Amino acid sequence: MGKRIVIIGGVAAGPKAASRIKRVLPEADVTLIDQDNLISYGGCGIPYYVSGDVSDEQELRSTSFHMVRDANFFNQAKGVRTMTSTRALAIDRRAKTVEVEDLATGARSAIAYDNLMLATGSEPFVLPIPGVDADGVFTISDLHKAIEIKRRIAQGMVGKAVVIGGGAIGVEMAEALTDLWGIETVIVEFMDQLLPKIVDWPMAAALANHLRQHNVEVYLGEAATEIVVEDGKAVGVRTGKRTIDADMVIMAVGVRPRSQLAREAGLNVAANGGIVVNERMQTSDPAIYAAGDCVEIRHLVSGRGLYAPLGSLANKEGRVAADNMAGIPAVFKGGIGSFVMKAFDMAIGATGLSLEMAKAQGFQADSSLTASADRAHFFPGSEIICLELVFDRRTRKVLGFQGIGPMNDSLSVRIDAAAVAITAGATIEDFATIEMAYAPPFSTAIDAINSAAYAAENLCDDRMRQIDIQSFLAWIADPSSHPDWVALDVRHPKQAQPNVDKFGAALWLSLPYDKVRSGYQVLPTDKIMIIVCNAGSRSYESQLALDAAGLRNTVVLPGGYNLIKRIDADILL
Amino acid sequence: MGKRIVIIGGVAAGPKAASRIKRVLPEADVTLIDQDNLISYGGCGIPYYVSGDVSDEQELRSTSFHMVRDANFFNQAKGVRTMTSTRALAIDRRAKTVEVEDLATGARSAIAYDNLMLATGSEPFVLPIPGVDADGVFTISDLHKAIEIKRRIAQGMVGKAVVIGGGAIGVEMAEALTDLWGIETVIVEFMDQLLPKIVDWPMAAALANHLRQHNVEVYLGEAATEIVVEDGKAVGVRTGKRTIDADMVIMAVGVRPRSQLAREAGLNVAANGGIVVNERMQTSDPAIYAAGDCVEIRHLVSGRGLYAPLGSLANKEGRVAADNMAGIPAVFKGGIGSFVMKAFDMAIGATGLSLEMAKAQGFQADSSLTASADRAHFFPGSEIICLELVFDRRTRKVLGFQGIGPMNDSLSVRIDAAAVAITAGATIEDFATIEMAYAPPFSTAIDAINSAAYAAENLCDDRMRQIDIQSFLAWIADPSSHPDWVALDVRHPKQAQPNVDKFGAALWLSLPYDKVRSGYQVLPTDKIMIIVCNAGSRSYESQLALDAAGLRNTVVLPGGYNLIKRIDADILL
Repeated sequence: MGKRIVIIGGVAAGPKAASRIKRVLPEADVTLIDQDNLISYGGCGIPYYVSGDVSDEQELRSTSFHMVRDANFFNQAKGVRTMTSTRALAIDRRAKTVEVEDLATGARSAIAYDNLMLATGSEPFVLPIPGVDADGVFTISDLHKAIEIKRRIAQGMVGKAVVIGGGAIGVEMAEALTDLWGIETVIVEFMDQLLPKIVDWPMAAALANHLRQHNVEVYLGEAATEIVVEDGKAVGVRTGKRTIDADMVIMAVGVRPRSQLAREAGLNVAANGGIVVNERMQTSDPAIYAAGDCVEIRHLVSGRGLYAPLGSLANKEGRVAADNMAGIPAVFKGGIGSFVMKAFDMAIGATGLSLEMAKAQGFQADSSLTASADRAHFFPGSEIICLELVFDRRTRKVLGFQGIGPMNDSLSVRIDAAAVAITAGATIEDFATIEMAYAPPFSTAIDAINSAAYAAENLCDDRMRQIDIQSFLAWIADPSSHPDWVALDVRHPKQAQPNVDKFGAALWLSLPYDKVRSGYQVLPTDKIMIIVCNAGSRSYESQLALDAAGLRNTVVLPGGYNLIKRIDADILL
Repeated sequence: MGKRIVIIGGVAAGPKAASRIKRVLPEADVTLIDQDNLISYGGCGIPYYVSGDVSDEQELRSTSFHMVRDANFFNQAKGVRTMTSTRALAIDRRAKTVEVEDLATGARSAIAYDNLMLATGSEPFVLPIPGVDADGVFTISDLHKAIEIKRRIAQGMVGKAVVIGGGAIGVEMAEALTDLWGIETVIVEFMDQLLPKIVDWPMAAALANHLRQHNVEVYLGEAATEIVVEDGKAVGVRTGKRTIDADMVIMAVGVRPRSQLAREAGLNVAANGGIVVNERMQTSDPAIYAAGDCVEIRHLVSGRGLYAPLGSLANKEGRVAADNMAGIPAVFKGGIGSFVMKAFDMAIGATGLSLEMAKAQGFQADSSLTASADRAHFFPGSEIICLELVFDRRTRKVLGFQGIGPMNDSLSVRIDAAAVAITAGATIEDFATIEMAYAPPFSTAIDAINSAAYAAENLCDDRMRQIDIQSFLAWIADPSSHPDWVALDVRHPKQAQPNVDKFGAALWLSLPYDKVRSGYQVLPTDKIMIIVCNAGSRSYESQLALDAAGLRNTVVLPGGYNLIKRIDADILL
């Protein structure tokens, strides 16, 4: 008999590992256990199933060649003994057995293993507030809940919905409810921005603006304090500021590692609940491996523990665990939290650390903000992507990269290239020479990722001085808040004129870019001039020309109008 | 007076360097010289100007904020003294002067420099065959020629065209002539594939197939031997096999470095004509720098010299040269030849070495071929991209990466990530864990780039045995050529049936993937079975299952039908 390998958990890391083991060690005796009857599904696809982009839940658990990945499939096609509706109750590490219960019959038995793998996944966090158990309150934790959500919507039971939590799943669900179904949807987020810790404020603010333009209301800095319940049914959500009617409440405030089994077996578990594993995905018991949403991995930028419950990482971790169990040495070095998301017509993504997180971790962090064409500006269909490159002033290493762009792959192109570079320890200078494949229909001769590095280099070398976006927006909302500030608009005078009319010629100066070198004499020396243009590059060049002329009283608005108009839809262009 | 810097060449590297110097060293006295009156244009955009995607040639030499980059622009906005229609005749390295001629007046003068930069670009190669000087024969070398080409087309003077050369520019021009203008266009390529040395045969064959489907005739392995001329006008092209009528002939057989000035000045020039520079873009004279299409750089994979006349590299090299001349130490380590191109509805791209080039350079090279979904297969709009990952069996390093995909950015996503990884010296295993940002609208949990690495790993570890595509296609065209070969189709029997009907049940065996483990007993042991499916992955799994059952007489068709149907439009699916 071959090596006995038991895998607990049948969604992502588990099935991946089970199948891989049977490929590289065909004689292995592999058992896959899951408490659910539905296994091996793309949980990340749930919002698209709810929205209707995916019509049938079976598509989420089918192969690309349209075979449903059920127990029968794993038994026959993969040679994996698959036990669904079977719960693992306890691990006996000395005897090397797992006690399981058949949920249909209640029968208990013990399964012996040479190697055990825990792929127990995550469980949704539920806020400890009144009413969360009411009918109509859902987490997005499994296919059964998704099916019920869609059933209610399709039957016209949901006119209004509240999504508690402005993370990725919350935003994706809000789009799903609004876009096709026309449900009046509100997102309530406790932090003062969407996607907290994942992206910085400018990108999050652009996302919030975009959602509002697509009829999703977004309340930030508001904690949900109670689910309002009538006759056992959720009818609303109360926050510190208001009560919002709702026929359905989506609780999307994050997930936690499902690690109780590991903890009870005496395995090391991190403070955040993630099972501790080494680079070979081995737990503190060498015979037991773990992978997927239940483990903590290493953050390749910060060196700290990272809890990243992503299907993409789960599969890679599962494959590494499988190889090691099958006798092929393999390592999973860690992750950097690459992330991308669709929100209506917008893509938003990030990799590595945000500026806020980098500062919180003690890096001497700063960031460039740029707005660049995704392909040759003369090529039809060219659009703007806004990028933030986070770097460490001391080491010049790139710590993170994030951005927003149109809903196509143009943002992914840059996020993924950045992810590879950051993983390899790239500096700003390395980013400046990244060789992106170039042709006008795909990119620009100086790619947006290179431009982001150029700006970062100019900042790091103190050639560029910039203002932060929030301060600028606060100032144009109330110019009297900083009486010593003026704007210097270096765009074409026709573009500057509406703002000159609005703010007055003393507050909004107009001197086009190509006249700065010859015409700077008219500019004030006793005010701080905020230089504005469309993308920030003309502002930077103007700043240098003014520096050379002895006028150092300037700051650049990074990203220019291309960025701020995405944050504030009502801004005067 | 500031440092005197003279730059010869005003298309890409030159203007970039001139502008950068004035930013980082404002007191520098920078002079930009070009023999043409049109400067700083996107030469890569010429095919799109000819096609009509770009309506006016001015767009190719305008900024994203719609200012034309002429001499006046560089003088005023950039502070660069710009002399157009001025030819550099000779360099006096001892006196540190450049002798120039004003092409309008014929007046000659000497310009003194502290640093000189050569950005003299490239010149198109013209085949040494009769008739190349005839009216109607064009190279794609400058905007003036492009304007004349478009004028003739717009005036209805061109019904038929021959493009000599199946490289990137030749293919782009063929599309430009065919797509909008409906010109009957033929590409004549001397080598037996399009894009020789850039991509390997399978990708090139898919491109040729795609071009033919879009009414571009492609003749491979045919040398143009003569331009047929009547009354001084080109009327056709003669090859070893035929004579093709043509109202216009595009000569696109490559470019050569324009390095005569450097050579005459006694600077080191490589055998291929590229000016030799170090990592700081310095020539053999420390006072003279060079960048762009006129230099040879280092190939970061092979370590050999690389001649890569690309606008994207020119700009990066120019910036590095500028920094060094301005006193900021900077290095340009080299390139890996990242490439991407649009051809009608197809994208084709590559980075690093092709399999053929890698073998030619002595690597123990092999490659995986995979066909993967570009985004979650259940997400609407998911399409297939076919990838080739070239690796070295000895070091397990990835040497190159290429592919074809739909005409969007999904191929670029993978090519660019691969380019960064290869530059960083990544192994197959590094590719297997590249963390691509994942959400169903953008990618798959196991990204196509990871799948390519998985296949490569399986090959490198001798877990997978494959057949090359060309051998398979030759065999199905004539099964009697290998009487000991049979196909084992592991797709659904309904999909296999048309081929069973065509080839006969003895030659085309049908055993679906999920029945292989239980039903292998019916399979022959005295034939070589070529396992076929849609993407290659079920074939590989079947091969392993058969290996475990003792049937090792199999090879996998890598990429499966998804790849071969792109190569041969008439293939029976």
